[in-house]
Amino acid sequence: MARINENYLKLKAGYLFPEIARRVNGFVESNPDAAVIKLGIGDVTEPLPPAIVEAMHAAVDEMASRDSFHGYGPEQGYAFLRDAIAENDYKGRGINIGADEIFVSDGSKCDTGNILDIFGSDNTVAVQDPVYPVYVDTNVMAGHTGPAGDDGRYEGLVYMPCTAENDFTPAIPEQKVDLIYLCYPNNPTGAVASRETLKSWVDYALANESIIFFDAAYEAFITDESIPHSIYEIEGAEKCAIEFRSFSKNAGFTGTRCAFTVVPKALEGKTASGETKPIQPLWNRRHSTKFNGVSYIVQKGAAAAYSAAGREQIGELVRFYLENARLLREGLEKAGITVYGGVNAPYIWLKTPGGLKSWDFFDTLLQKGHLVGTPGSGFGAAGEGYFRLSAFNSRANVEEAVERFQKAIG
Amino acid sequence: MARINENYLKLKAGYLFPEIARRVNGFVESNPDAAVIKLGIGDVTEPLPPAIVEAMHAAVDEMASRDSFHGYGPEQGYAFLRDAIAENDYKGRGINIGADEIFVSDGSKCDTGNILDIFGSDNTVAVQDPVYPVYVDTNVMAGHTGPAGDDGRYEGLVYMPCTAENDFTPAIPEQKVDLIYLCYPNNPTGAVASRETLKSWVDYALANESIIFFDAAYEAFITDESIPHSIYEIEGAEKCAIEFRSFSKNAGFTGTRCAFTVVPKALEGKTASGETKPIQPLWNRRHSTKFNGVSYIVQKGAAAAYSAAGREQIGELVRFYLENARLLREGLEKAGITVYGGVNAPYIWLKTPGGLKSWDFFDTLLQKGHLVGTPGSGFGAAGEGYFRLSAFNSRANVEEAVERFQKAIG
Repeated sequence: MARINENYLKLKAGYLFPEIARRVNGFVESNPDAAVIKLGIGDVTEPLPPAIVEAMHAAVDEMASRDSFHGYGPEQGYAFLRDAIAENDYKGRGINIGADEIFVSDGSKCDTGNILDIFGSDNTVAVQDPVYPVYVDTNVMAGHTGPAGDDGRYEGLVYMPCTAENDFTPAIPEQKVDLIYLCYPNNPTGAVASRETLKSWVDYALANESIIFFDAAYEAFITDESIPHSIYEIEGAEKCAIEFRSFSKNAGFTGTRCAFTVVPKALEGKTASGETKPIQPLWNRRHSTKFNGVSYIVQKGAAAAYSAAGREQIGELVRFYLENARLLREGLEKAGITVYGGVNAPYIWLKTPGGLKSWDFFDTLLQKGHLVGTPGSGFGAAGEGYFRLSAFNSRANVEEAVERFQKAIG
Repeated sequence: MARINENYLKLKAGYLFPEIARRVNGFVESNPDAAVIKLGIGDVTEPLPPAIVEAMHAAVDEMASRDSFHGYGPEQGYAFLRDAIAENDYKGRGINIGADEIFVSDGSKCDTGNILDIFGSDNTVAVQDPVYPVYVDTNVMAGHTGPAGDDGRYEGLVYMPCTAENDFTPAIPEQKVDLIYLCYPNNPTGAVASRETLKSWVDYALANESIIFFDAAYEAFITDESIPHSIYEIEGAEKCAIEFRSFSKNAGFTGTRCAFTVVPKALEGKTASGETKPIQPLWNRRHSTKFNGVSYIVQKGAAAAYSAAGREQIGELVRFYLENARLLREGLEKAGITVYGGVNAPYIWLKTPGGLKSWDFFDTLLQKGHLVGTPGSGFGAAGEGYFRLSAFNSRANVEEAVERFQKAIG
């Protein structure tokens, strides 16, 4: 009798984005002429930069000829890409991360989920609240939690509330936690972590032998020079942190699929008997046993993101979305809304007017403005009363959205 | 204190292919002029078919323009690809598998590993021996086994020997097993399963409420019309089997990365309390939470494999490798070697001459023939005394390999 993993049954049925889709579809059916603008899901809208397009065409041509054909590549990624990452994202910023500490993958969503494979099931896990739902759901699937309570929080996880009251910067936990998910620039709040904030986390992790899962998928949107792009800018972080990076939001790879994870060789974990073991060989083993490398064509495209032309074109893309964020932020502020984020991040996090519940505000905005955003409560209990708008859209849509927003809540 | 998953420490350090690489590199260093021919790893050598190349160029161009750009796609795969698979691989063969039972992924290696996520840790697991190492290693990682014994077999797994004595067709287990890995056409032995053999497995699984993991990565190499391509050609299999398929070996996608897994809606598992639950929603939840879809460009390429031109070009590729297999098989037989497989499969499985141990024969062939194959013992204890050669190579290399083989053992 084949037995299922019953932890899956603890997962709440109504995942955020399907519920949004359900409500939007219902609205569109009743209002077929409404031109709905979607600022909900954080998906890029602009085409791939020309340097990347060119590199992928060349790679497709290589695959078309026997002499330049590529079969199985190294599971960890081709040296040309790992070297480019090490050089540009780390060494170029004075960070000592080597190519053999970089694991190329097909997405940070996969990596932040799969990373739990190499850790025991007896760790105490802390997440920010609101939070990217994948961190929580993958812990539920792995059996690290009890059932969910009425507020949607799962027993056994340590939730760290991020609200206006603490400036969306959670307090360091008073209890000992073993695995800590941090996302900066933050999805969904758009908050960033100062050097001091990150240092306090690294100090905590080193003191408690914890490991930080640092999701830096949005680092390209940092314009403030005092804000670290990588947790490894903090001394000692290579002994307590794994970093997740992606080409999705900077190079527009949400549909092209490429990301990477940094597992420093200095990082260690413990066995039940207290023996110390390096983490990098465990991830290497997982990656080479349960993964077979990213498409050669896609890796060639990702590598082109580091060429001179690629860097310039990506810079332009990022500035375009940041300008969208500014327009949204300022337009909403003009409408009297309290707005957070949207400066070093592509997300606008706003307090719902009149203390409306997140889902009620979602319905108002959809009905009156034909606008779709994401209810803050969908990201966690502490997101109730907040709402997320994404800056990933065309300029025309963003300008139109601001006007509609102002009318809808007027 | 972050704790590691200690099951990883049970994994034997010397994984098969790294050990082969170590020995080959050592030989090449001492013999820099030797032109080593590699028939070891099962990696394709011929370029992508023109229809696929053309489709991928067109997809790259779509990504270069705002109006045709694709961001996040459905995690399960685009309808254009799922529909093409359902139509061509299943409905066209009279099998009732729907597009919503097909999950597109970046590789069967990933899928055969990840599938364990949705099953409990209290299942009894059976594998063929010799076996594709990923099935075993991922069970070790998931904590389904004890440590390995001296013969490399892990405690707790049920090994089903496949040797010349049973015509490489394992007996149905006498005990009850819950999860059964079957691979046909088989890697590494090249054996195929008749309709009767598959029916006996389906009957067993239905009677015992077991689930079969059916790896059909090499189905395109079946030329004998009486041999099923899919386990779903057997009545009732949709109630007891998950099927893994890949574009790697037919369309040459080892470096391009696309595969799919079929999870029928009729398939069910049990909870500890004996409740019945459908499996398809569990895999759908896993796939959408821990995976973000295959690159749009790659999916477009895979879909072109089903166009009229694509099908013809793939047929040509498969026939090319099968002709290599024939040349190897007949050449080895002429040299007095007992050969199995290589008819409906791209692998030649041979009995080492003079009862040599697999690794000793590896060394002989490397030293005397400058040929690289794969020691059968690397696939499991029952593979000792056998050796695998792959038909994935150029015609010239295959012809040269046959000559060298004959001299080396002469």
